[in-house]
Amino acid sequence: MKDISYKNVKITDGFWKIKQDMINGVTLKSVYDRFEETHRFSALDCTWKEGDPNAPHVFWDSDIAKWLEGLAYSLSFYKNDELEKIADESIEKIIKNRDENGYFNSHFLVMGERFTDRSEHELYCAGHLMEAAVAYYNATGKRTLLDAMCKYADYIEKVFVKDKSASFVTPGHPEIELALVKLYEVTGEKRYLELSKFFIDNHGANDIDKNLYRGCNGDYNQDDRPLRERETADGHCVRALYLFCGMADIAYLYNDKELFEAAERLFMNIVNKRMYITGATGSTCHGEAFTVDYDLPNRDAYAETCASIALAFFAKRMPKLNIDSKYADAVEKVMYNGILSGISMDGKGFFYENPLEIDPDFNDVNICTDGGKRFPITQRKEVFDCSCCPPNVIRFIASIGDYIYSYTDDTLFVHQYIASQTENEGMKITQITDYPTTNEIKFVIENNSKKYIALRIPAWCKKFEVNKPYTLKNGYAYIETAVNDEINLSLDMPVTFVSANKRVHSAAGRVAVMRGPVVYCLEGVDNGKDLKSVRVDIKGETEISNKEFLVPNITAKGYKEPENDALYFDATEEYIETDLKFIPYYAYANRGETEMLVWVLKK
Amino acid sequence: MKDISYKNVKITDGFWKIKQDMINGVTLKSVYDRFEETHRFSALDCTWKEGDPNAPHVFWDSDIAKWLEGLAYSLSFYKNDELEKIADESIEKIIKNRDENGYFNSHFLVMGERFTDRSEHELYCAGHLMEAAVAYYNATGKRTLLDAMCKYADYIEKVFVKDKSASFVTPGHPEIELALVKLYEVTGEKRYLELSKFFIDNHGANDIDKNLYRGCNGDYNQDDRPLRERETADGHCVRALYLFCGMADIAYLYNDKELFEAAERLFMNIVNKRMYITGATGSTCHGEAFTVDYDLPNRDAYAETCASIALAFFAKRMPKLNIDSKYADAVEKVMYNGILSGISMDGKGFFYENPLEIDPDFNDVNICTDGGKRFPITQRKEVFDCSCCPPNVIRFIASIGDYIYSYTDDTLFVHQYIASQTENEGMKITQITDYPTTNEIKFVIENNSKKYIALRIPAWCKKFEVNKPYTLKNGYAYIETAVNDEINLSLDMPVTFVSANKRVHSAAGRVAVMRGPVVYCLEGVDNGKDLKSVRVDIKGETEISNKEFLVPNITAKGYKEPENDALYFDATEEYIETDLKFIPYYAYANRGETEMLVWVLKK
Repeated sequence: MKDISYKNVKITDGFWKIKQDMINGVTLKSVYDRFEETHRFSALDCTWKEGDPNAPHVFWDSDIAKWLEGLAYSLSFYKNDELEKIADESIEKIIKNRDENGYFNSHFLVMGERFTDRSEHELYCAGHLMEAAVAYYNATGKRTLLDAMCKYADYIEKVFVKDKSASFVTPGHPEIELALVKLYEVTGEKRYLELSKFFIDNHGANDIDKNLYRGCNGDYNQDDRPLRERETADGHCVRALYLFCGMADIAYLYNDKELFEAAERLFMNIVNKRMYITGATGSTCHGEAFTVDYDLPNRDAYAETCASIALAFFAKRMPKLNIDSKYADAVEKVMYNGILSGISMDGKGFFYENPLEIDPDFNDVNICTDGGKRFPITQRKEVFDCSCCPPNVIRFIASIGDYIYSYTDDTLFVHQYIASQTENEGMKITQITDYPTTNEIKFVIENNSKKYIALRIPAWCKKFEVNKPYTLKNGYAYIETAVNDEINLSLDMPVTFVSANKRVHSAAGRVAVMRGPVVYCLEGVDNGKDLKSVRVDIKGETEISNKEFLVPNITAKGYKEPENDALYFDATEEYIETDLKFIPYYAYANRGETEMLVWVLKK
Repeated sequence: MKDISYKNVKITDGFWKIKQDMINGVTLKSVYDRFEETHRFSALDCTWKEGDPNAPHVFWDSDIAKWLEGLAYSLSFYKNDELEKIADESIEKIIKNRDENGYFNSHFLVMGERFTDRSEHELYCAGHLMEAAVAYYNATGKRTLLDAMCKYADYIEKVFVKDKSASFVTPGHPEIELALVKLYEVTGEKRYLELSKFFIDNHGANDIDKNLYRGCNGDYNQDDRPLRERETADGHCVRALYLFCGMADIAYLYNDKELFEAAERLFMNIVNKRMYITGATGSTCHGEAFTVDYDLPNRDAYAETCASIALAFFAKRMPKLNIDSKYADAVEKVMYNGILSGISMDGKGFFYENPLEIDPDFNDVNICTDGGKRFPITQRKEVFDCSCCPPNVIRFIASIGDYIYSYTDDTLFVHQYIASQTENEGMKITQITDYPTTNEIKFVIENNSKKYIALRIPAWCKKFEVNKPYTLKNGYAYIETAVNDEINLSLDMPVTFVSANKRVHSAAGRVAVMRGPVVYCLEGVDNGKDLKSVRVDIKGETEISNKEFLVPNITAKGYKEPENDALYFDATEEYIETDLKFIPYYAYANRGETEMLVWVLKK
């Protein structure tokens, strides 16, 4: 199976067109401005000296790189001379200031010792620059950065494989593994693929890499044991999931069954035991990490936006190894929930952490010199000290076309339902839909070199209709197609109430409201205070109403507790009937600081 | 109103006799052994030198002192030559090693600068030694320690009031305030009372005392503002509550209405907004502190045993200022729940923290160099590095007789229902009861100098019967008595389901099971895993059964969730009926590590 690239998929309308317009019209410039103000862009000048203010941070290059990469995806469909000029100038600075041997890092060029600290983000930054280089070349045809990054990759190969002169063997923050695969794909140079495989094979297999920073939740730096031996997803979620992407790439490109099986085990461990209903991962801020199966606290969830994006990257790669809808289901889950909650409706504000419950009155009650009990912030910010998430959201949304189509010799797979046109490999297909606002998807097939079109039937969908005969296999409805065909898919999309496994103690007795792939939440601004005590009637009628936040809001029957001043009092069965207004989870925290709740008591 | 001292109240039978027998037969020796092993007793030799192991900790004297005090109470009713000998030897060491000026502190005599660090426990240790001295004198008639502590108190008065030569004005860990009042009461020396008043008046009123350690939850060291101006109970719970005891004492002895009103505000803030249903306080381990109104998390409750004991001390003092049953209600609540959970059924193990929920599978999932998310331990320990709670439980239980009777000119007040005999102030009364196992209390009055006996009608009791005419006033039933009278009180004591205020988000949708003053809980060892998802039927029949843990267990109708392997699935209304076995909360964690839950989902 091969993917159809975002380059060949034009988003035409609806939900994701609105988001891409926002990225191009607002977010790219806003994030650039914040990065400029915070000296990230000027750090590329490499002029910082001891005693100067604004010392370049070890991960600033990755912020720039992800922004460049996101801009590149956007430039494929939007003209943006102002930002392209900034991109070109930034690339020039990188070229100008890099070492003769190809090395570039705006931190280590002005301070510190190169390749001595595995837990720093040196190879991570390199990887992101490689991804940016590939994207920028693909979008603009300009290969300055690509050539520079090839040279840098060659140097990294020399240091890590040939000379073994670095103080460590594999990166403490994985990312370069998947980036090198992209570099291989665009250049055809197999040594980049082999360098990626070298890192994949060596993770957790070298004593020299172990125990560098093991403080938090075990496998923080992904060095506990070789990847092939891993049973569970542990440690820092973003590090883990970026690494699993490289792992899936290498498994695919080397046809490595053992590595695939390990990746599959890790994927299944995540989606069956360690993933929030929003698709987010990271149960704790301590180590930004996975913890143990079913430990999914809501209010102090870490649920980093980048981890959600990384899960989409990982899940996107797996169908190439095993055609099954569960992967695209995971992509869809995280795409409409855990990722999108990371950006405000106006495109300027971001969450790093995406809890499933916000309780502002009790949020800052433990401010403490010895750490204190912390909860995620309640309102999005335009930039963070560690601002990895904002440009990551940009590149994800700008390349959403990447997630829609794949193909084998005889089948075109449709993973996601997004209004779009694609013309590629002898196929010309228009997908017309307002999904997930409504549930109808029409495919107009002008040209199709494939015998079948295989439409994913989402796991959340209990009933669907297609206007053609189909065979259902591993979650895809296979339909024989002809030229000038028209296929209509209707996915039954009622409001549903979802329970969590009873081992998930944070959701005990509670349900989440969903419609299609979209998870909903209550906000205090609509429903008053003390949402934790509100009950929703799972047998009651529900109504979908105005599209305040792109998809409809939901009104459900609910119950509130009567007023009572006492701290403790005899339990009653009295409730006050009320209508509850649910909004899409991704839209929370757009109307000021207020309570928010995904898991609502079940009446 | 005056109290009848424990000395004049012999506990004869039932619940508290069993506990006092345990303290005398097991706990005193076990805690002594642990303190001996951990070098606390040998620290009294004051021979430690730089480089030696086992440096005496700044609060070790208070551990010894509370143990001595508890032993003293016990010696009033139990002969215990072995431990009395140890006590005498320890006192000899104190006498031998103290300074000529009366100063004694086994830490500061061998290291550090005296009276320079307000946040250390120097005056706290002095206060505890004074309490021990008073108790030991009262129990044994031996006044060596009492005389020594009077001299020490004189020296403290010189340093703090006359010379003002200390680096601070008031203690960062209050305790000495209430101890000086005891010293005054036993010696009649008013300067000790005045020294106590000096500290009470100066707390929070001196810039020199402020901002020494303000890291955690505001008023950690009780130095934020003068006591008379305080509206809420803040900061370190034990420090706060010990201080409020001194405050109540001074308000009473100086007839200080303003100070009483401040104490009343603080008491009401605690019991109406900041107290667990177990009577425990301390919503966070960070600063061992109060946080904000209604913030009462269950699993990471701090709920320190000492804070519960301190609340009993505070609530015991308040009726002298304002005759109302709410104070003795608070004493009863904490006595049967938050205090007693601090000691194991065998009398050897202790909890420092008393959470309302234990979830062992998810307890140690955040072990982390940067602090991590911590939860209280799941099993009691025999000694802690900071082992304040074990001897505090000893002295509380050994002096339980202190909490039963008070009197005014014409009325004998009965605050607690405990099988006992008292002969004092012309009264000779036998209280016969198996309370709270059963609900009948009989008073045999052989001699009574008072016109009335006033029996507390607990707030939890909706219906009661007395075999005499009575007038109900402020929660006490006033009954005219005669010599050779017999009064029978019957307190209706059904199993009840209790809700928390909806602002207590941690208890939303949940109920606690109570019978009389006793809070119950579920344990995994009886009811299986995933207790958070179990529901109890608040309309269902309940049964009380065998007295496995002194009072009956309770069987209630409940419901479990059907098995389901999925992480998320469509909500159903299917449940599996089950009997739920509730045990007294104070008896949790006596049968190995297992889940525990107080707040159970309400069906």
